[in-house]
Amino acid sequence: MMFKNLTKHVKVVEVGPRDGLQNEAAVISTKDKVTLITSLVKSGIKNIELTSFVSPKWIPQLADAEDVCHLLKALPSDINTSALVPNAKGYVRTKESKLSCIAVFMSATETHSKKNINKTIAEALATIAEIVPLAKKDNRKVRAYLSVVFACPYEGQVNPLSVVELCRKLIEMEIDELSLGDTIGAATPSMVLDLIDKIKSLDDLSKFALHFHDTRGMALVNVAAGLEAGVAIFDSSIGGMGGCPYAPGAAGNLATEDLVYFLHSLNIETGIDLAKLIDCGRLAEQIIGRTLPGRYLRAVIAEQKLQNKAKC
Amino acid sequence: MMFKNLTKHVKVVEVGPRDGLQNEAAVISTKDKVTLITSLVKSGIKNIELTSFVSPKWIPQLADAEDVCHLLKALPSDINTSALVPNAKGYVRTKESKLSCIAVFMSATETHSKKNINKTIAEALATIAEIVPLAKKDNRKVRAYLSVVFACPYEGQVNPLSVVELCRKLIEMEIDELSLGDTIGAATPSMVLDLIDKIKSLDDLSKFALHFHDTRGMALVNVAAGLEAGVAIFDSSIGGMGGCPYAPGAAGNLATEDLVYFLHSLNIETGIDLAKLIDCGRLAEQIIGRTLPGRYLRAVIAEQKLQNKAKC
Repeated sequence: MMFKNLTKHVKVVEVGPRDGLQNEAAVISTKDKVTLITSLVKSGIKNIELTSFVSPKWIPQLADAEDVCHLLKALPSDINTSALVPNAKGYVRTKESKLSCIAVFMSATETHSKKNINKTIAEALATIAEIVPLAKKDNRKVRAYLSVVFACPYEGQVNPLSVVELCRKLIEMEIDELSLGDTIGAATPSMVLDLIDKIKSLDDLSKFALHFHDTRGMALVNVAAGLEAGVAIFDSSIGGMGGCPYAPGAAGNLATEDLVYFLHSLNIETGIDLAKLIDCGRLAEQIIGRTLPGRYLRAVIAEQKLQNKAKC
Repeated sequence: MMFKNLTKHVKVVEVGPRDGLQNEAAVISTKDKVTLITSLVKSGIKNIELTSFVSPKWIPQLADAEDVCHLLKALPSDINTSALVPNAKGYVRTKESKLSCIAVFMSATETHSKKNINKTIAEALATIAEIVPLAKKDNRKVRAYLSVVFACPYEGQVNPLSVVELCRKLIEMEIDELSLGDTIGAATPSMVLDLIDKIKSLDDLSKFALHFHDTRGMALVNVAAGLEAGVAIFDSSIGGMGGCPYAPGAAGNLATEDLVYFLHSLNIETGIDLAKLIDCGRLAEQIIGRTLPGRYLRAVIAEQKLQNKAKC
């Protein structure tokens, strides 16, 4: 029976400070980034991607990666902090940080891989194979992002078997966690059930995360499908920050508040305080200077405006 | 297993021209309303609420109810057209129309009932009892809306047993279809499963519709729960038109395009052409002069803007 016998706890991975801010037009001060991340941690977020060590040439929004990590080095030790690392050279920049996890990334299609990182899939795998031992040597976990696992903006629908094959290669490299990305928000529940069904023969499902975009409004039904299939790690971004990389103006990342509200309604624990998370959503809106698309956030803000008006 | 063994066909009831437009600030010309409704029918919508015969004193936006019905009297005979009727006096105004269905309405809580229609629940039931025989005499179906069945803005969470009791009374009056409204968008899948489980002892579930608002982003997961429970009629509004009556600025009605895209992804037929429906969403935006919240509509519009830019 749907929505029954689901996992009792979900690991929420907050990607807003990286996947969100890297797609925002505004350049945010280091201080504001640190304030937002600190607030997110105070709301109960235990897993958070702080920034990216991709070259500032490509992502100027996150050029202050070293400073962000430095200013956050006193975060409690039970907080899992990660940052994106594109190659061995980028890894060197993380050396002074206290990051507990390094995030690597690649695409599930050749065209997206070439367009996004100017590498073939084979080259991307080789790059990841260089980074993993460096991180392991420093006692760090490695998370891998595999993008466009359901559909690619250039190649259309993606064959799940090719995704399974890439997952197999990543697992062989001793990746600790593998996040499967619906980069353009084109997944549907049937596609999610089908992919997870094929993937679970590879390894324990507890290594797999799902990363949905709400572009077409399907993010939460896809989370429902992922839960049903046994996945217990989901990525999200505060307020839905980040937009959609190929369709500006459309919704992007699944909003953390929408995810947490949904999970709590199913009696699934996240360890996150939803009211405090909403305050983080407001803070994110102040910092980036625009209205964020998260539905739950919008509802709470509209409701409070109405109450304030009634008080006048 | 979730998302499996679901109904093969869903009846989508388009409520935008009534439930949407009555909540829009702008007053729309009769001609524009007729154009929008005609386009919706051309996209494959077979069930549509055209307008409301509530007094123009309360809903000036729909003061042209007679004219709208008159101009649409040549709609194909397989289209189920309905309009809201508040009382026997309002019913008289429908006499010249070709409406196949009359929609009556009441609330599941005393406070909402008093605030919304200035009647107790008992008075609202008595009013409906007057309208039903008038409609039946004219060979018309009767649809009843029961609002705030999950939560009430004044009384909080609503006891499902009191909802079941009201449904029982409405069914005894020979209501043909009963739409259960999550008026403030506070339902969650667990609440939906619980309510439908209690309701199905009353009567054949094929009489029941679910009417979700996407205020907190839960509309589609609630549809999923409704489908799982065996409901096969869902209300929605083109583009999500209508806003949230108690929290202006927040999302209101579930967008028809989001519903249809979701249902089609599950291989559930609706008879609706999604591409044509998107054109209706654009038309609705032009007519009301604002951006609508439907996620799928926003994604398509953003994508096409990007493609047009690339062509330049």
